[in-house]
Parts: sequence; C-alpha cells; structure tokens
Amino acid sequence: MGMKLGIIGYGGMGYWHGEYAPRAGVEVVAAYDVDPKRLEMAKDNGIEAYDNLDEFLKHDGMNFVVIATPNDVHKELTIKSMHAGMHVMVEKPATMSVADWDDMVAESEKTGQILTVHQNRRWDKDYNVMRKVVEEGKIGEVLSIESRVFGTGGAFFGWRSFPEYGGGMILDWGVHLFDQLLGMYPDIKVTNVYAKLMTVLDQKVDDYFKVTLTLENGPLLHVEVGTYAFYKLPRWYVIGNEGTLQIDDFDCEKGGYMKPRYTDTPVAEVVVMTSAGPTRMMAPRPPETKEDFPLPEVETDWTELYQNLVGVMEGKEDLIVKPHQVRRVLELIEVIFQSAEEDRSIEVRI
Amino acid sequence: MGMKLGIIGYGGMGYWHGEYAPRAGVEVVAAYDVDPKRLEMAKDNGIEAYDNLDEFLKHDGMNFVVIATPNDVHKELTIKSMHAGMHVMVEKPATMSVADWDDMVAESEKTGQILTVHQNRRWDKDYNVMRKVVEEGKIGEVLSIESRVFGTGGAFFGWRSFPEYGGGMILDWGVHLFDQLLGMYPDIKVTNVYAKLMTVLDQKVDDYFKVTLTLENGPLLHVEVGTYAFYKLPRWYVIGNEGTLQIDDFDCEKGGYMKPRYTDTPVAEVVVMTSAGPTRMMAPRPPETKEDFPLPEVETDWTELYQNLVGVMEGKEDLIVKPHQVRRVLELIEVIFQSAEEDRSIEVRI
Repeated sequence: MGMKLGIIGYGGMGYWHGEYAPRAGVEVVAAYDVDPKRLEMAKDNGIEAYDNLDEFLKHDGMNFVVIATPNDVHKELTIKSMHAGMHVMVEKPATMSVADWDDMVAESEKTGQILTVHQNRRWDKDYNVMRKVVEEGKIGEVLSIESRVFGTGGAFFGWRSFPEYGGGMILDWGVHLFDQLLGMYPDIKVTNVYAKLMTVLDQKVDDYFKVTLTLENGPLLHVEVGTYAFYKLPRWYVIGNEGTLQIDDFDCEKGGYMKPRYTDTPVAEVVVMTSAGPTRMMAPRPPETKEDFPLPEVETDWTELYQNLVGVMEGKEDLIVKPHQVRRVLELIEVIFQSAEEDRSIEVRI
Repeated sequence: MGMKLGIIGYGGMGYWHGEYAPRAGVEVVAAYDVDPKRLEMAKDNGIEAYDNLDEFLKHDGMNFVVIATPNDVHKELTIKSMHAGMHVMVEKPATMSVADWDDMVAESEKTGQILTVHQNRRWDKDYNVMRKVVEEGKIGEVLSIESRVFGTGGAFFGWRSFPEYGGGMILDWGVHLFDQLLGMYPDIKVTNVYAKLMTVLDQKVDDYFKVTLTLENGPLLHVEVGTYAFYKLPRWYVIGNEGTLQIDDFDCEKGGYMKPRYTDTPVAEVVVMTSAGPTRMMAPRPPETKEDFPLPEVETDWTELYQNLVGVMEGKEDLIVKPHQVRRVLELIEVIFQSAEEDRSIEVRI
C-alpha cells in the first residue's frame, strides 16, 4: 500500500517534512497552503500544490497528511482530514488543550484513521545517550535530571509570538522536552508541578521558562528553555548517587560521566583554604579519586518515525507516538500554565 | 581600645579565625574547647587554652568572642558570653530558629554588647563581580540569577551530619548564598519560596538542595548546592534582557558577559538543520552578531569584616552584618524547610 503523504501548511516545518519523509521511503504527493509563495515553493520541489483544502483532500491516492500549521487550527484540520479518509500526523503541540485532543482522538477511534504527533525528538541522539547512561545504572540511582535548551534567537517569528495561535516556548520546545522525560517514566506519576514562565524580550508569550516536576518515585526533573541566553548550560545534567552525567550539546561531542574512584588518598579531611574560602566539603577532590567515562555510542535514526507509520498502516507495527502519551504531556502543560499563572506549585497525579 | 578576641570552639573554623583575625590587626588572646587535642593545637599557636568556659570568659582584657561550635549551642554561648561582658560574633548559621535569634538580639540590646554573624562570603570576589555587572546594568534588566556551589566531598564530617546540631547544606552553605542574594534586595520582598532538599548519599541531613525564590519586583533567584556533583555548573549564571553573565568559579578566572552586537547579518530567519534538528530559534547565532566582555576587576578584602567590628567597637562605623539581615535569612530558611517538608511552594513576605 505505502504512504502517500500530503502536507497541510507548507511553511518552515511543512517544507522540512517534504524533505525528510522521502528519506524514509515516503512519497510526498501534495501540499496545501494559504500563501501563494509557499505553494510556488512546493511546486518547485515537485509537489502538487493546492490553495483549496477540499480539493487537496481529494488528491488521488493520498492516504496520510501531516499538519504543520499554527496550533490553533490543528483540531479542525485533523477532523476534516480524517473525514476525508486520511491518517493524520499533527505537528507538536498536537493542540492547545486536553479537551481538543480528546475530540481528535474520538474522531480517530470513530473513523479508524491513525492519529499521531510529530514527536521527532524521541529520536534525538543526546536524549538517547542520556537515557542509556541512566537506564543502565552507570551513575547509580538517579536523583535529578536537568534538561536545558538555550539559544540566542530572541524574538519569535510569525504566529509563534501570539498566545492565541499557541505561541511561546512551553508549546514549542517544552512539549518535546516533557515528552522525552515522561517517556522514561510511563508508569510513574508526576505528583507536583512548579513552573516559572518569563518574557525576556517583552513578548506576549513565554520565551524563557523553568519547570520542576516531582515524580512519585524517581528523580526530580528540571526542564528549562531560554531563547536569549548567550552562554549555554549543558543540554543534560544528571546527578546520581554514584556519579554525575553531563552532555554539553545535541551533538554529544562533549560530555561524559564521572564517578568516584576508591583509593587510599584521603578526600578532604580538613578545612582547606581554597579560592572559595575555607571549606572542607567543597575542597577540590584529588584527581586520582575520580574517574571519567566517555559518553556511550548510540545510533539514532529520525526516519524511524515515518517508517513506524508505514508499519502501522500495514498492520505490522504498533504506533510509537501514542495518543495517551500525547494526552499526558498536554495535561502536564495545562498544569504548567496554571502553576505559572497562580505562582504556586500544584499537586497532581499525571 | 582594640579587639582582644577569644575563640569558643577551636575546631576547623575556630582555628581559621585564629589565623585570619590577626591579619586584620586583631589580637587573639584565648580559646575554649572541650577537646584536649584542639586545646593543644591552640597552645601550639600561642593562644591561651581553656577547658572551662567560665574561666575562659574571665580572661583578662578579652572583649570579643567568636563562637564556632555546633549550631545547637550558639544561643546559650552567646547569652553567656554577653553576660560576661563580651561582644559576640557567631559562626553561621547564627542559630537554628528565628525565635532563638530574637532571644539573642534581645540580650544584645539589654547588655549593649555587639551581636553579629560571620557572613564572610559577602566579601567573596565572585559575588562582588556578579553584583557589579548586575548593578551597573551591563546586561540590562536582570530576570534570573542562579547561584550554584558544587563539590564532590560527599559525606559530611562530624556534627554536620546530624539534624539536631543543625547539619546539612541549607544551614552550612545555603545560609551564605541566601545572605548574598537577599543583600542585593534589602527593600524588595521575597514573595514565594520553593525548595527541594535531597540526600544523595543517604545522610540524615540535606546534602543536595535546589531553592527558587520569587521577588515581588526583581529577578527569579535560584540557589543550588550539591556535595556529590562531579561536574561543576557555573558558580553564577545570570540572564538579562540585554545579555548573559557567567562566572565559572570562585576565582573568577573563567567567565564573562555576552551581549548581542547589532549588525546587518540576519539572525536565523529560516528553519535550519542543526545537530538539534530543524530549528530557527535555537540555530547558532553568527559570531559577528554577539560580543564578549571580560569580567570586571573587583578588589575584595576579607579582613574588612574584622576591621568593621573594630570600627563599631570604637563607635566609628556601623555594623555591616546587621541583626535584622540575619533574621531575614533565618526566616527564609524556616520557610525553606517547611516548603521541602510539605512539598509545595509557600507564599511569604520576607
């Protein structure tokens, strides 16, 4: 049967799907947009271009659409596409409320069409390297995982600067980072959410956030995104009771994990004078009492996401990005906005 | 008149006062301890050693004591010393509750003796460099200040591993770091406190904490101390709306602040493929659109603390480390323990 993909919204991300789906063997057959310039671009890339949604949805042989529009119209476009017999992958965030997502899932169940979300960062190398070190117990029991993404872009582009279209960093990057971490703890509840949303450059939407999630039985999770941070803190920073993991950036070129090495060298038995003043606990550890390990090699392949969808269409695979996982992240995001708005931590079971 | 200093508790910090007060021209005349080995050490350093507190307090000419004992006996020793006509500087934390501190202050007011606390980290270079950059507006309006101290010592020493003696990192390092930050905002209220206290190495007291403080009108403050963190995050990390400040460590050898430089080079107008995947906001900024500044030079002198006390004794100076500032930090610490215990943020006006 094979996937014949249509793209709804041939903007930045729609264009990217047009480039990237073919690498997984997917045929991109049509694109719909409201902007004539973007339609020209689609044509230049050999994709049939439509300025009318109904006509687009009748494109011969098309059986799957990816929706890469502003977030406020994801629901309407999903339901309309399913009515027209399409399977649907929505760009993240799937939508802006749990209630809307539930409507979309209900439509998927009614029509039997696949519904999924482009949570492509589950395949990011840095995430999978971090997960491997943590899950293999290399640094013992993990007490804290910090996930940070810092850039210097500053101002938002286009619709992403308006709350009514679902702009802001919680819904843009946050949704990926929460999906990554919750994916490590499918059966452990988040019990507490504390969120601080800020606007560094006086935007209408959050361009800097810090979120702390408490798990019922697991590490403390910290997720932070800044769009105007000129120095980068590490992408991942993890504290275990047998060592520390640091991954500097997405490319995993710098980082590693470090553990104590047991030797006869005494570690800071007396108060010593350091540039930190007199201290014992924070005195430098002799080099021979610690050991550095390189990050493990992990192969990741972004085309797996599309390959999985083809497998699901053929009844050979289970969907990787599942509706109930998407719902959990959206539920969390609703509480994050509430926590920030009310300036307090919120007890939950998510 | 001059200061003739007695040291109560000639342990790690007591010894350090014996070395450091003379650099400010202070004469160290006597020491009291319960441990004969420490008394021997005092004698070896030319200090008259007492194993009896009452006799120690009658030491001829002594007019000032520094109390460097476990925290649980600070109050009792302070009051006893004042009754004996001594001015008093207590090691930090001054005591373990606001109520105890109020009793100590009442005694100071009744007897007219000076009461202060060894908040020596107000003179730390890194803190003063950070403050200078922030207060001179070098990175614009500041939205977030993060203060971190990480070490690898792990286990606590002696009484510091017992809650009943006031052990743990909140009371050890936290009290310095909160004092530093609150000192920048004497007239701005803390409105919200969120604290996570952890025990990485299965101690009875906190050996890893993260605290978030919201100010009524000012940056979000984050204070974090870890005793088993094998990679260091920067000592200071500050986000402003015109740039970012980073100070790597106490010695200020690495760090600086970075700001945008306005050029004709467009900054990330399109979604680009990076090792982070397709992104526009997080795409690298062209080097010519940012500018790096070195950390300013700031001279700090730890002997100023003792010099100030001599000045106060002579009626020439105001006390730098004031009782009401100490009280504010203790009030905050009580709420920090409450927040951690109840696992929720707490609204305050501190």
